[in-house]
Amino acid sequence: MPSCKRQLAVYLVTDRDLTRGRDLIESVLDAVQGGVTMVQLREKHTPAREFTQLARQLMRALAPYKIPLIINDRVDIALAVRASGAHIGQSDIPAADARRLLRRAILGVSVQNADEAREAEKTGADYLGAGVAYATGTKTDYQGTIGAEGVRAICEAVRIPVAAIGGINAANIGELAAIPRLAGASVVSAILSAEDIRAAARELRSLWDGAPCRSQNT
Amino acid sequence: MPSCKRQLAVYLVTDRDLTRGRDLIESVLDAVQGGVTMVQLREKHTPAREFTQLARQLMRALAPYKIPLIINDRVDIALAVRASGAHIGQSDIPAADARRLLRRAILGVSVQNADEAREAEKTGADYLGAGVAYATGTKTDYQGTIGAEGVRAICEAVRIPVAAIGGINAANIGELAAIPRLAGASVVSAILSAEDIRAAARELRSLWDGAPCRSQNT
Repeated sequence: MPSCKRQLAVYLVTDRDLTRGRDLIESVLDAVQGGVTMVQLREKHTPAREFTQLARQLMRALAPYKIPLIINDRVDIALAVRASGAHIGQSDIPAADARRLLRRAILGVSVQNADEAREAEKTGADYLGAGVAYATGTKTDYQGTIGAEGVRAICEAVRIPVAAIGGINAANIGELAAIPRLAGASVVSAILSAEDIRAAARELRSLWDGAPCRSQNT
Repeated sequence: MPSCKRQLAVYLVTDRDLTRGRDLIESVLDAVQGGVTMVQLREKHTPAREFTQLARQLMRALAPYKIPLIINDRVDIALAVRASGAHIGQSDIPAADARRLLRRAILGVSVQNADEAREAEKTGADYLGAGVAYATGTKTDYQGTIGAEGVRAICEAVRIPVAAIGGINAANIGELAAIPRLAGASVVSAILSAEDIRAAARELRSLWDGAPCRSQNT
């Protein structure tokens, strides 16, 4: 499997409750046109049948853009719609099972410290989601933020690429972009809830790419 | 795949909230020793990681008994633990996707009328769960009961085996057992919440097997 490192740069994670009533597919396409490099469909409150339909629609919508679509939690749905991969958390299906079922598709794992990061890497994760980076209203079940220092410690613990997640926006993405080994930033509300989704994605992408350490790193 | 018709006779569906504090694995084994013919792990409120662990434990515990274990909703977890199959409802992963992912493993589909039954059969279901048969406190999201007549209509609409589900207990299983084409009855609380789980399973199995139309039918 090719590394997904470059595609993690500005990684949009969805939440239909945050689009301010706008259609999710349209919102994702706006974000992609603004410069988002990868998309994760994460809809915790959507029944599996509807979630599968949404995943299929998004696969079709994203096809012309060559943007990978990752499915949160449901490995079966990732396989059913032939998504690029699946992303799981610490209370989802075990990483070893997900790895085996996904074969060569991308497996992302959420971690909050270096121990979980090493464990996930050992189990065959292709990339890690490191967080919760900053305080966020999107996830309500997290156990405190790890900040840029926590993200840096996770990057240093593993060789696979890492994307930070949690409360990332235009005001703090620069602090993360300054971590040389960090591959990307996952964003939810700073893009999906923005007045102008495309402009918000463009700004985040530009802040990420423009950080001093990025030119020699990518 | 061999037909699962005979194994549907008394089909235990789990719910940890109904065991009155008793261990789920122990409770299932008691039910199996009482005469339950098939088991479905259905734990709607359990995170996927814990659900997978429970499924693995149950696979090991059931192995000596040759009792099929069916996993509710999560096809990926059914595949991960190599369960006998998966059971899905109308708002779970689409039946066509489940069928493809499960390959030759058993696929059960919940239906509430003849149209859904024919559709599920066409899509490749191996058996149907027909309900909600009688009023039940176990499921709170159902749209009214279909009674023995509704179960009979579903049986007559398809060729694959059907198990009734919903509010089935010692007082009403006889009415269902009198439907010649019905392959079985799925039971939740009448077994798991019984004072003596083994005795409750034994009684239901005996009422099922002893019904007048059963001897020539099986």
